[in-house]
Amino acid sequence: MNIIVDGMGGDKGPKDIVKGCVDAVKELGVNIIIVGQEDIIEKELSKYEFPKDMIEIINSTEVITNDEEPALAIRRKKDSSVVVGLKALREGKGDGFVSAGSTGALLAGGLFIVKRIKGIERAALASVYPTKKGVSFMLDIGANVDCKPEYLQQFATMGSIYSEKVLGISSPKVGLANIGTEEGKGNTLVKESYQLIKDSNLNFVGNVEVRDIPEGICDVIVCDGFVGNVILKLTEGMAISLFSSLKDEFTKSFKSKMGALMLKSQLKSFKDKLDYREYGGAPLLGLKQPVVKAHGSSDAYTIKNAIRQVKTFVEMDVIKIIENDINVNE
Amino acid sequence: MNIIVDGMGGDKGPKDIVKGCVDAVKELGVNIIIVGQEDIIEKELSKYEFPKDMIEIINSTEVITNDEEPALAIRRKKDSSVVVGLKALREGKGDGFVSAGSTGALLAGGLFIVKRIKGIERAALASVYPTKKGVSFMLDIGANVDCKPEYLQQFATMGSIYSEKVLGISSPKVGLANIGTEEGKGNTLVKESYQLIKDSNLNFVGNVEVRDIPEGICDVIVCDGFVGNVILKLTEGMAISLFSSLKDEFTKSFKSKMGALMLKSQLKSFKDKLDYREYGGAPLLGLKQPVVKAHGSSDAYTIKNAIRQVKTFVEMDVIKIIENDINVNE
Repeated sequence: MNIIVDGMGGDKGPKDIVKGCVDAVKELGVNIIIVGQEDIIEKELSKYEFPKDMIEIINSTEVITNDEEPALAIRRKKDSSVVVGLKALREGKGDGFVSAGSTGALLAGGLFIVKRIKGIERAALASVYPTKKGVSFMLDIGANVDCKPEYLQQFATMGSIYSEKVLGISSPKVGLANIGTEEGKGNTLVKESYQLIKDSNLNFVGNVEVRDIPEGICDVIVCDGFVGNVILKLTEGMAISLFSSLKDEFTKSFKSKMGALMLKSQLKSFKDKLDYREYGGAPLLGLKQPVVKAHGSSDAYTIKNAIRQVKTFVEMDVIKIIENDINVNE
Repeated sequence: MNIIVDGMGGDKGPKDIVKGCVDAVKELGVNIIIVGQEDIIEKELSKYEFPKDMIEIINSTEVITNDEEPALAIRRKKDSSVVVGLKALREGKGDGFVSAGSTGALLAGGLFIVKRIKGIERAALASVYPTKKGVSFMLDIGANVDCKPEYLQQFATMGSIYSEKVLGISSPKVGLANIGTEEGKGNTLVKESYQLIKDSNLNFVGNVEVRDIPEGICDVIVCDGFVGNVILKLTEGMAISLFSSLKDEFTKSFKSKMGALMLKSQLKSFKDKLDYREYGGAPLLGLKQPVVKAHGSSDAYTIKNAIRQVKTFVEMDVIKIIENDINVNE
């Protein structure tokens, strides 16, 4: 299997990405194609020992940054790592693509170059959401801020398939993120989506209250991209704010400083649970080929995990299953 | 000043509400009219010493529960405490109304009986949101799940006035809850609302990232009722889940049990910051008279604080200011 990796994306630059690729080759047994500025990538690769025939470089001279308008950047920067990488994917040089670069550019590039599966109305960006019980899988988390009920129905189907095949959840419980549990609750979009998802052949548990999401109320959480992004970002913000407030409280007195010291390892183990690094990346679902977005601040460990995720994505033939499901229901 | 209080609403029943009313009479110097089953209210009142001429009872025989369809219940239960109380308000028997009962019934009753201010398109339910710096004021938090940009513009205006007059914030910073800070980010509703709010005479700070809300990024947070409810409920859910997870971690070993014990008071003081009890209730903005929803699980202390809030609401003439502002901008 060949995984194509955007060597230039991400806040930490090629150093961590290349290290993640080397680790993936050794630990996961996949071949890697790194797309990026050849001299920089080669210099980084020269630091490590690995089977030389398992990593290949495709040269690209441009980089798309987070500040650029995604669709425009994709059209103008033909020699950017994300455009070159996605074209290599489309041409069959690799089986899947990972990038830690601009989410917008990856989305735009995915739609323009790799293209949507026939019958899929919108591609969704999905993410695991750490809960008390483990993880939930949430989509859309920001690719589609204005949705129709038909989109949410397809998100539910794609999310269920991905959760089962890649995350290994048998008969995943699919819930619709809402502000109440009763049928008939919510805004127009959610109410109409409820009826469509109810009529599908999924293990639909109905509306789930947003309040219960952190407890791990279901396996797949369906929402529009605006609400999904709000949920994800508020969770991050709350965690950061709560931890810093707790730290303030803990360091107020000598007694609590002692206590804080004693609890340090416990706090860390809890914080790790909320850590996206363990979970790799966010798959773009609905495209004709596997594309995964790794977190912008990914280190080598996260990149390796994102590569692991795209490997399973490919192995489990998720896209073929989505295609079949959509065609059956057309 | 006469404040009318729904004596029957809330999970804890008349016992705590009556106690809250007695405390309010003594501490805040307001007259109270309690609406509810006369014998029950009288029995509760007989437990306390207070100036007898400052508390009056209006008898009502019915109660609307949280399970009932709000609009239907308001029409059918003409002798419920919320309907009788709101009618007394409309008839000028009191200056403001507080209820800890069904939010939906209070909303429906407010719209049918008290009615909207001329020129106001939708009444909003608002709430303080505890942040690291203090509190923000957020609206709408659930009264309007499908909004138009014009509604959000009016929410911004009403929120700014309330924040200044009742919460005492001079020139409140008004932000639009969004998934990015740049102008042009967000869904269609938010993008169009941005332009309208920008053109108003408010201290508009633009889009605020939901991630930054817990830090206290602005004084007034404007959003549609679906998103507002998601933010509020997820915050509650996250706090509950994080605290229970931390507790689990803390009690894993003897060493950390010791630490947890030592930190108990700090944890409590932090938890109190997130406690809605301090903040009283959620005002319904856009109605012709002051109406405040107290939390369903309000105890006497919370009821007293909700009465304090409606007192300031009345004293500061918030409704007159909203009316003037809307008429100027019509």
